[in-house]
Amino acid sequence: MKPSGEDQAAPAAGPWEECFQAAVQLALRAGQIIRKALTEEKRVSTKTSAADLVTETDHLVEDLIISELRERFPSHRFIAEEAAASGAKCVLTHNPTWIIDPIDGTCNFVHRFPTVAVSIGFAVRQELEFGVIYHCTEERLYTGRRGGGAFCNGQRLRVSGETDLSKALVLTEIGPKRDPATLKLFLSNMERLLHAKAHGVRVIGSSTLALCHLASGAADAYYQFGLHCWDLAAATVIIREAGGIVIDTSESQAAFSSKFSTQASSPRLQEKQSEPWRTGRHPRWGPVGLPHSSLDEPPRNKMGCSPL
Amino acid sequence: MKPSGEDQAAPAAGPWEECFQAAVQLALRAGQIIRKALTEEKRVSTKTSAADLVTETDHLVEDLIISELRERFPSHRFIAEEAAASGAKCVLTHNPTWIIDPIDGTCNFVHRFPTVAVSIGFAVRQELEFGVIYHCTEERLYTGRRGGGAFCNGQRLRVSGETDLSKALVLTEIGPKRDPATLKLFLSNMERLLHAKAHGVRVIGSSTLALCHLASGAADAYYQFGLHCWDLAAATVIIREAGGIVIDTSESQAAFSSKFSTQASSPRLQEKQSEPWRTGRHPRWGPVGLPHSSLDEPPRNKMGCSPL
Repeated sequence: MKPSGEDQAAPAAGPWEECFQAAVQLALRAGQIIRKALTEEKRVSTKTSAADLVTETDHLVEDLIISELRERFPSHRFIAEEAAASGAKCVLTHNPTWIIDPIDGTCNFVHRFPTVAVSIGFAVRQELEFGVIYHCTEERLYTGRRGGGAFCNGQRLRVSGETDLSKALVLTEIGPKRDPATLKLFLSNMERLLHAKAHGVRVIGSSTLALCHLASGAADAYYQFGLHCWDLAAATVIIREAGGIVIDTSESQAAFSSKFSTQASSPRLQEKQSEPWRTGRHPRWGPVGLPHSSLDEPPRNKMGCSPL
Repeated sequence: MKPSGEDQAAPAAGPWEECFQAAVQLALRAGQIIRKALTEEKRVSTKTSAADLVTETDHLVEDLIISELRERFPSHRFIAEEAAASGAKCVLTHNPTWIIDPIDGTCNFVHRFPTVAVSIGFAVRQELEFGVIYHCTEERLYTGRRGGGAFCNGQRLRVSGETDLSKALVLTEIGPKRDPATLKLFLSNMERLLHAKAHGVRVIGSSTLALCHLASGAADAYYQFGLHCWDLAAATVIIREAGGIVIDTSESQAAFSSKFSTQASSPRLQEKQSEPWRTGRHPRWGPVGLPHSSLDEPPRNKMGCSPL
């Protein structure tokens, strides 16, 4: 079933219905632009590292989404990946705020690797109201609305409910950083999961789409450090509405938290089932569906994870 | 564009045209069965390790493909994953031989992770004639015919031609083994690639589809140790016909080789461009598009990689 604006109409229209429909239509339009650009030559620039890429299409799509939304909703605020990279302040106030990643999976996009998404989240009073993610190449439109469920092309999503790590398919990402501390952390966590006999570990190059796989029950857990709010905002609503949890392992409950929890060992999901999960509203990073204790975490003084 | 038997007819009909068309039709039928089974409960068994999975659908699909082909081509021989796991001998003679992986990505299949393929290769006089791979969930039919080109749903495939590892997207797989030596090797190679500043490393859970991404130019290199001929037979034709190379890093030129090349360091693709590539006809494992020197390799006396 191909996506359209209409087939996302399952939940009753809420106070932000017009915004939601605008997000769906813009995600689909952005997807068309990205699909076309996938077949063309690209001018690629780097940001924080040689693996942290940005293209003209990232900027084009972000500008399109923001300009259209600003025209329709002039009082709304925006947090967006490329604007932030250019120095724009990312402040989540109580005002209605759009949180946008124009191309999640830019490295994939540059290589024409077909795992690329547009992500549009929407928050009011610092509470996420809905998320829209469009898997451009596979034409899958994922949506989640607070209290209204999560869907992919009109089909309801449910997380797997798997509680045993040894039966779990776990997703993670390397991310764009290549400094020794980041690589060591990535590799040590991969090693822990494999020694813990996870069924499998997958790295697909898009945190947003990894989270959509989780929401649809096609994977059981996801973790990553160093994510930004635009990587997580839309996906968080979709995961929650699919019955899953998004954890900011920070000790702080503040939005855009900067702190990390301590590390521990025993990697068994079921032992953690009864524990309360800490759910930062807009975590910059965090495992999803995986106990904190199964992962090494970045030392507080080495990761540049300051509050947005 | 959806796949069909007709849109693969670009190359002129060769002596094995009837076999090729049978493979296409069977791959599409198998794909229908797998897609349906993806939505159902599965009975899962393990083979060599807790992560080495097999389902009723693997057996069902393999039996379907072999029984249909045996009826149409009674003199032909078969090498197939599940028959081999049950103890059937895998001998590549000069007779026409079908080399079959009924579900590549069984762990993905079990989790409903949408990266699952049927792979059917065909060899005559120990020379691969064609390969047919069907990406069941995305309905992409990849084909390659010796001298006739490689296609995906009728569109010609070309490898990327990237020669610089620091601009490369590299694919690999963990595989089903979880013994300490295998994990150490996997992690050390991942570390090497990341320290060598590869753009990205992806792990998608299907060696066959990873190779199809390579053939379509969506990734630049692939390596894995411990692959079987059914993982590689069909993909090898597709890669070659897309302008790529498949390397058996064994010193031996024999089919189903059991030996390993020595390890070295400097991971730069372009330095290796002028070197002759060793192309074992049916490698059990091997990097594709990546210089040997960039990888650690398994010690000969620890990996159970005996000739098939």
